[in-house]
Amino acid sequence: MTTTEAVTGAVLDNTCCSSTNTGVDAETARELATAFKALGDPTRVQLLALVAAHTESEACVCDLTAPVGLSQPTVSHHLKILVDNGLLTREQRGRWAYYRLADGTLPELARKLTSVISVD
Amino acid sequence: MTTTEAVTGAVLDNTCCSSTNTGVDAETARELATAFKALGDPTRVQLLALVAAHTESEACVCDLTAPVGLSQPTVSHHLKILVDNGLLTREQRGRWAYYRLADGTLPELARKLTSVISVD
Repeated sequence: MTTTEAVTGAVLDNTCCSSTNTGVDAETARELATAFKALGDPTRVQLLALVAAHTESEACVCDLTAPVGLSQPTVSHHLKILVDNGLLTREQRGRWAYYRLADGTLPELARKLTSVISVD
Repeated sequence: MTTTEAVTGAVLDNTCCSSTNTGVDAETARELATAFKALGDPTRVQLLALVAAHTESEACVCDLTAPVGLSQPTVSHHLKILVDNGLLTREQRGRWAYYRLADGTLPELARKLTSVISVD
C-alpha cells in the first residue's frame, strides 16, 4: 500500500497521524479472536498440548483428567469449548470420547498470527 | 520420552489410556493463556494489526480510533490490556500516546503455539 507515501510532505493540522492502513479485515479479526479466546485458559492450553503429545495426536478423556488435576466433568467442559471452536474434534467410541487436534487449525492460527503482525 | 513405550504390551484393566505425557508445563500454559486471553477480542486483534501495519510499527492512539470505529476511551482501554499483557509498549509524547509492538513477543507466541502442538 502507498497510503503513508500519499501523506508524506503534506501539511497536517493538529495531527500525528500518518496512515489509514487497516491491518486486518474484520472477519479475520473475529475468527482469530474466537480461537484465541478458546485458548485463553491455562487448562485448555494444557489439554491441547496433552492431546498433541499423545500417540497419533489422539487422546481419550480418561487420559486427560489426571494430568490437569481436574474432575472429568470440568475437563469435558473445557474440551467442549475446544471442539466448539474448531481446535479439537471429538469421536465417541463405546464408553469413551476421543479427542484429536483438528487438522490444520492450529498451524493456520499460528500462521495468521504471524501474518497479522508482519510488518513487511 | 518413552512413556508410551513403557506401557506397550501391558495389560491395562478397564482403560483406554496409553500415555501420561504432560505436553506442556503449567507455567508455559499460564503464560500462553494470558497472552491468548488478551488477544481474544476482535478489536484487540485489529488494534495489534493496525499498529504492526503502521510505519515503523508505531501508531498514535489518534491513528487507531477511526479504523476500529470506537471512541478513544474504549480504544485506550483495549490498548491498555495489550500493554499490560506485554503485547504492545506505550510511550507518551506530549499530547499523544504512541504504541509499538513489543519486541519479539508475538513471534515468540506463534513459536510457542506451534511448539505446544507439535507432534514430533
